[in-house]
Amino acid sequence: MASKTPVGFIGLGNMGNPMAKNLVKHGYPVVAYDVFPEACKEFQDSGAQVMDSPADVAERADRIITMLPSSPNAVEVYTGANGILKKVKKGSLLIDSSTIDPAVSKEIAKAVEKMGAVFMDAPVSGGVGAARAGNLTFMVGGVEQEFDAAKELLTCMGSNVIYCGEVGTGQAAKICNNMLLAISMIGTAEAMNLGIRLGLDPKLLAKILNMSSGRCWSSDTYNPVPGVMEGVPSANNYQGGFGTTLMAKDLGLAQITATNTKTPVPLGSLAHQIYRMMCAKGYALKDFSAVFQFLREEENL
Amino acid sequence: MASKTPVGFIGLGNMGNPMAKNLVKHGYPVVAYDVFPEACKEFQDSGAQVMDSPADVAERADRIITMLPSSPNAVEVYTGANGILKKVKKGSLLIDSSTIDPAVSKEIAKAVEKMGAVFMDAPVSGGVGAARAGNLTFMVGGVEQEFDAAKELLTCMGSNVIYCGEVGTGQAAKICNNMLLAISMIGTAEAMNLGIRLGLDPKLLAKILNMSSGRCWSSDTYNPVPGVMEGVPSANNYQGGFGTTLMAKDLGLAQITATNTKTPVPLGSLAHQIYRMMCAKGYALKDFSAVFQFLREEENL
Amino acid sequence: MASKTPVGFIGLGNMGNPMAKNLVKHGYPVVAYDVFPEACKEFQDSGAQVMDSPADVAERADRIITMLPSSPNAVEVYTGANGILKKVKKGSLLIDSSTIDPAVSKEIAKAVEKMGAVFMDAPVSGGVGAARAGNLTFMVGGVEQEFDAAKELLTCMGSNVIYCGEVGTGQAAKICNNMLLAISMIGTAEAMNLGIRLGLDPKLLAKILNMSSGRCWSSDTYNPVPGVMEGVPSANNYQGGFGTTLMAKDLGLAQITATNTKTPVPLGSLAHQIYRMMCAKGYALKDFSAVFQFLREEENL
Amino acid sequence: MASKTPVGFIGLGNMGNPMAKNLVKHGYPVVAYDVFPEACKEFQDSGAQVMDSPADVAERADRIITMLPSSPNAVEVYTGANGILKKVKKGSLLIDSSTIDPAVSKEIAKAVEKMGAVFMDAPVSGGVGAARAGNLTFMVGGVEQEFDAAKELLTCMGSNVIYCGEVGTGQAAKICNNMLLAISMIGTAEAMNLGIRLGLDPKLLAKILNMSSGRCWSSDTYNPVPGVMEGVPSANNYQGGFGTTLMAKDLGLAQITATNTKTPVPLGSLAHQIYRMMCAKGYALKDFSAVFQFLREEENL
Repeated sequence: MASKTPVGFIGLGNMGNPMAKNLVKHGYPVVAYDVFPEACKEFQDSGAQVMDSPADVAERADRIITMLPSSPNAVEVYTGANGILKKVKKGSLLIDSSTIDPAVSKEIAKAVEKMGAVFMDAPVSGGVGAARAGNLTFMVGGVEQEFDAAKELLTCMGSNVIYCGEVGTGQAAKICNNMLLAISMIGTAEAMNLGIRLGLDPKLLAKILNMSSGRCWSSDTYNPVPGVMEGVPSANNYQGGFGTTLMAKDLGLAQITATNTKTPVPLGSLAHQIYRMMCAKGYALKDFSAVFQFLREEENL
Repeated sequence: MASKTPVGFIGLGNMGNPMAKNLVKHGYPVVAYDVFPEACKEFQDSGAQVMDSPADVAERADRIITMLPSSPNAVEVYTGANGILKKVKKGSLLIDSSTIDPAVSKEIAKAVEKMGAVFMDAPVSGGVGAARAGNLTFMVGGVEQEFDAAKELLTCMGSNVIYCGEVGTGQAAKICNNMLLAISMIGTAEAMNLGIRLGLDPKLLAKILNMSSGRCWSSDTYNPVPGVMEGVPSANNYQGGFGTTLMAKDLGLAQITATNTKTPVPLGSLAHQIYRMMCAKGYALKDFSAVFQFLREEENL
Repeated sequence: MASKTPVGFIGLGNMGNPMAKNLVKHGYPVVAYDVFPEACKEFQDSGAQVMDSPADVAERADRIITMLPSSPNAVEVYTGANGILKKVKKGSLLIDSSTIDPAVSKEIAKAVEKMGAVFMDAPVSGGVGAARAGNLTFMVGGVEQEFDAAKELLTCMGSNVIYCGEVGTGQAAKICNNMLLAISMIGTAEAMNLGIRLGLDPKLLAKILNMSSGRCWSSDTYNPVPGVMEGVPSANNYQGGFGTTLMAKDLGLAQITATNTKTPVPLGSLAHQIYRMMCAKGYALKDFSAVFQFLREEENL
Repeated sequence: MASKTPVGFIGLGNMGNPMAKNLVKHGYPVVAYDVFPEACKEFQDSGAQVMDSPADVAERADRIITMLPSSPNAVEVYTGANGILKKVKKGSLLIDSSTIDPAVSKEIAKAVEKMGAVFMDAPVSGGVGAARAGNLTFMVGGVEQEFDAAKELLTCMGSNVIYCGEVGTGQAAKICNNMLLAISMIGTAEAMNLGIRLGLDPKLLAKILNMSSGRCWSSDTYNPVPGVMEGVPSANNYQGGFGTTLMAKDLGLAQITATNTKTPVPLGSLAHQIYRMMCAKGYALKDFSAVFQFLREEENL
């Protein structure tokens, strides 16, 4: 264990913090950075080393993982004035686990390549709980020869590491999955709500859907109707889980990606609008399955 | 076997014909009727008895199954000038396997009750193949005490007979399932199409969705992208399966039902419009998974 | 004036009451009926004659106007146990100003014709204010030869009486207009909201739209953004005007009509869903231009 | 006239070419550039001067107008290796008439300001015909003090020059107008199609809409139904006018802008999807009012 070389970690937020700690647990010396001093402080107190900028991290570590909230943050961390690329070493492996526009991933990859380093996009599926438990799923895009090197690190934080293809396909896979997830979740909420209003018992209806062609993850594993399943956000007033704002963000990425590739996504587009409206109607911090609650509210004159 | 009393069967179309024949195979003497003489002729040639009207069927049989294309047909067959109710016997069991508006089922049920008979709605899931093989799924609504009597007949034609609740809930369950099915199918088509345009291999993307939260029947059992699965309509130029016009019809029922109960179904409603447009763009007779083909067509200046 | 024969009026609600009173003002003896005794009482106190049932009205008057809230009410008033048709005189002129499904208008028309009387559908545009002021717009469907006779009465209550074609086309014209109105109103709200968020002054943006191809009644006559125009509901906290529930009702009719004629109405269908959701989110009694307020609400974490 | 200083013009496409020629007609010496040599050749043959790059144009002229097809083109022309900013003179006035993302306009404006020059966005409304006739409408964003200087040039090419506010608001106004236009056009097509199927005469229906609250530019000035109006694309097989691909492009900009500002635009978003689908179904080069034809196609089994 003693001989492990340092791993850089940039972005110590709700997700990044437990991810970086899992690297530490696996014996990797971690050199970290976050734009918020408090996030750095907390991490430092747990025994890790904290740098002053992404550039400084790149000076110390030739394997770096970034976990950032949005495309502009990622661009800044890589290509900004004190960005990774200012001091990156040749041959470094840079892995971005942020969920961002795959076109931006490709641009960053080009800039990284020019410096003689390697870039992979590796967005995650699974929330804070999975980050803590170290069982995230990583969807990885980049040069296939580097996948094993990336996997070595990612398996410390996730139980599932999938190679998706060239740079940007990790983002693509995540965006496509989440768009379909949003669509099936709203569809499940609509179908359950309509069935209940037509006199069906919710548990019975869920059972029927799950043995029929309407079956989906949202109906059989994460049912949005309170009382149908245990241990899911709908059983706990839609607390925890995957927040409505995060789903709205991912659908926004799907929308932009679809617009730029001229791909028709009528339901994905409407799903985006619905989650956007929910954000403004008090559902921002609830789990995204709360769309059932949003749709079931009744007219009240 | 010799002592079985006759069973009436009205509606000998693509679905009704093989269903009625399965009753015959199980030893039930069938007395049948269809508004099209050719349909009657074909059935008579196979050894069954054919009547001149629904009323005549009701005179001969105290258990009757109806399988009709739409709400107005069902109303006519039950309450029309030569309808079942003209000669129905007290205590008769009338089972309607048509897919119609549950509100219409309830109206028919009331009229049937007034005559001292029993009505159940029992729409099916599964197509012509399942009708022939006798493994349809029946979703049954009506008085629970009569369910066993209905089940005795329905198990001759289906492998799955589910009690859903009071009259109309069989229709409700079918409509809700098919609405969710349409939504997930279009969603799967959108997600697969977007992923492919973003550089993902279709089989790999399907595999990723199926192990993630985007998983649904349309992605893991009936994938709409040619080349991803064997033995599904997408592998056979979208022939066979469940036709786009039939899906559009069921979505129309969902729409009317939702409108009448003031239930918001934004995605169900848009799914209806998409299948409606597909019907007019040459997809009417293709399997409903052809929505992938409809969406993938590229701009061609 | 003395020689005018009585005119029947059935349905003395918010709209019917002032309409009937305008007939009285024009010198017509009115014999009226409403299912609610209080509505009858109020009308009787103003000097008119009140009957016990639609049938009794038909016995006394050979010209009858009906103004009812929904299709089932209209069916009941015409063909129910004490309905108009029980005692209608041959040659009577029956005018229905309710907004209902044109297919129902046609069915009623058939039943009326069988009794040797004439039926016309004549839904109105304009609200309670226009009903009081006698400047409603009537869209009239029915046999053209009878149009003049209908117009004689309708001009007492409206300033605009338009002949649309055969029975049902009055309803069709109203439904189509209101569907387009809902679409343009939501579109105007979306465009104004987006423009404001992009830094445009609302008054200037409205001015630009109104001199450009985005111009519509909702932008130039009934702008939904507070502060842009005087004397419209948006200037008065969306009070008065045309209620969101009424718009949702008309869009429901458009939806059912489109479904039954297999007509694709993607935007009309989504507009319906939006007004349906608004009804459940506290906007039911606000003017339908409040969709601007519904859409502008901001995320508030 | 003799003393007029040269004006630069970059982008000599279908729109730019006649716009630049109108500047020449008004006595301005024009120095031009286009990435396509043929476009330059044609322009040179008409007596104007052609440069080798945007930078060279900037060296010769301190007032420059750019008319480019998309955001990346605009970025390249301004900030690229041979871009305007390489040789721009202090105090120059740079006017971009391209239709692009207002966020990109703002970024370009910042880069221009750093060089001590002035940037304004001034997208146009009106097509090739209006460009030739010199009666385009310009929507202008930028510092108000510079508006008069811009207007002097723009009035040579347009009959309407509107000041909208700070940089980016010209784009914003155009995008909002066109989004509302697309929505009303589709809405008009849906309403006309539904009305026709319900038995209304198209001309009569248009007349009713135009005197009612459904009235809009698409119904009263540019009606999409063949036979209703003369001199519009619908009277000429949807040739000429504003192409479906162009509308799809503008709706894509609206979509991206709305996503980035978290503004819900449900109808705008669905309108985008509909024009996107039309592009792939053979309507790419037809006028955008052809959505009527797209929606009216009937099921044909």
